[in-house]
Amino acid sequence: MAVLHGALAKPPKLTLVVNWFWRKGARVEVPRLRQRGQDSGTTKVHLAELTPDLSTYLGTAAYLQLTIFENLSRAVATAPTMESKEAVSAAAALSLAKHHALTAEIQRHGLVASTVMDPNRAAIDRFQARTQGSDWFEALTSCFVTSGFLDDFFLRLAEGLPSDTAARVTAIMHKPSGEKVIADELLAAITANPRLASRLALWGRRLVGDTMLVARSSLVTSDNHDSDEARIEPVFTELIAAHTRRMDTLGLTA
Amino acid sequence: MAVLHGALAKPPKLTLVVNWFWRKGARVEVPRLRQRGQDSGTTKVHLAELTPDLSTYLGTAAYLQLTIFENLSRAVATAPTMESKEAVSAAAALSLAKHHALTAEIQRHGLVASTVMDPNRAAIDRFQARTQGSDWFEALTSCFVTSGFLDDFFLRLAEGLPSDTAARVTAIMHKPSGEKVIADELLAAITANPRLASRLALWGRRLVGDTMLVARSSLVTSDNHDSDEARIEPVFTELIAAHTRRMDTLGLTA
Repeated sequence: MAVLHGALAKPPKLTLVVNWFWRKGARVEVPRLRQRGQDSGTTKVHLAELTPDLSTYLGTAAYLQLTIFENLSRAVATAPTMESKEAVSAAAALSLAKHHALTAEIQRHGLVASTVMDPNRAAIDRFQARTQGSDWFEALTSCFVTSGFLDDFFLRLAEGLPSDTAARVTAIMHKPSGEKVIADELLAAITANPRLASRLALWGRRLVGDTMLVARSSLVTSDNHDSDEARIEPVFTELIAAHTRRMDTLGLTA
Repeated sequence: MAVLHGALAKPPKLTLVVNWFWRKGARVEVPRLRQRGQDSGTTKVHLAELTPDLSTYLGTAAYLQLTIFENLSRAVATAPTMESKEAVSAAAALSLAKHHALTAEIQRHGLVASTVMDPNRAAIDRFQARTQGSDWFEALTSCFVTSGFLDDFFLRLAEGLPSDTAARVTAIMHKPSGEKVIADELLAAITANPRLASRLALWGRRLVGDTMLVARSSLVTSDNHDSDEARIEPVFTELIAAHTRRMDTLGLTA
């Protein structure tokens, strides 16, 4: 994330509003576009009260990061050229380093990484299966979209952790990522073959739905649907705006 | 390698002799066993005169290391338990770090890693396809056998590089590897399911043949078959002895 923050700071032309879904049986509304003037403003919203316990937070964040690494390493193996292979290998190394920083944090709390990650395995493995893509371009777009969104999300959620842990986790999430490298690869691919753009834009829309679902399932909700919803919706609206800026950097419509 | 050196220092019960093959159309003799008393002694043999130029050496070593990483990352993705996934992810990180240390060395010489690795791609990709294995146990055995053998081989071959480069490359090759972690995983798997032993022993025999071929193809031979052969054979006999000790640590017959 950190690498691209500068580039992403420009305001988006459009933002997205989601009518947020609720628990089982809920559906994801197709995002509708609205004009920039209608933005709900820049009030910073917080998820802290919905942050799960430390073990669940760290287990989910660590296993998602491992999943992103697995996707990146598959992209290393299937890269069309040696240049791309080498570039993506650097992104994979950064992602794996982030995963191991999170497992080190787990151990710091006297917990065992594999035990703490295990309860999330089935759900995250399903997420991975749905987002792996049918070729190298889709796989790389997945890495770009899902890791960008999830890093943002877990950074927000870290605010609800005990403060010393929150500081360390925030530092981990801000470590250099491969986002710039991946964006460069995708931009080069789209420039070389402009017909990729519409396919990857569609794919990105599918990805953001799945990514929101997996993020959402990490939240600890209360019995009060309305107050939870009031917290969650603006945060996800901001995360989607960041996603839109990320797609903008590829010249793709979110 | 370095991790297991201590454990591997015990002498093997048997060593192997290979009648070495020669270039195209040559065949690999099935290794024959001979008694320890017949060992050819401990004279240190050298490959330095057959070391390829710097660019070829570094390109081959770096791409083989990337291939080993790809195999390890596939083993991360397909691990049967979260414990194994986490353990193998540490080995994958070490392997990828070694690859990037080699590409940093390539850059130090003003060369571009992807360019220097490219000429070896087709041959090494064939090697990877032949050695990837049909399940997690075979894949992990491949990582264990091929990385052990190739690290040994490229360490020997480093003696023929300019001395400052040789020192740095030797330091890279001696960096911690995931060999111990992988051996522990395989030992646990074989203990839990002893029927794996005969299949993995057979698989190991196939692997060492393919690994010797890819190692052999990195050597620069002269027009004098006999003098080349006199250098190569004892080195490979030693490398196979190390391989035998490695298989011993898993309780498998080489």
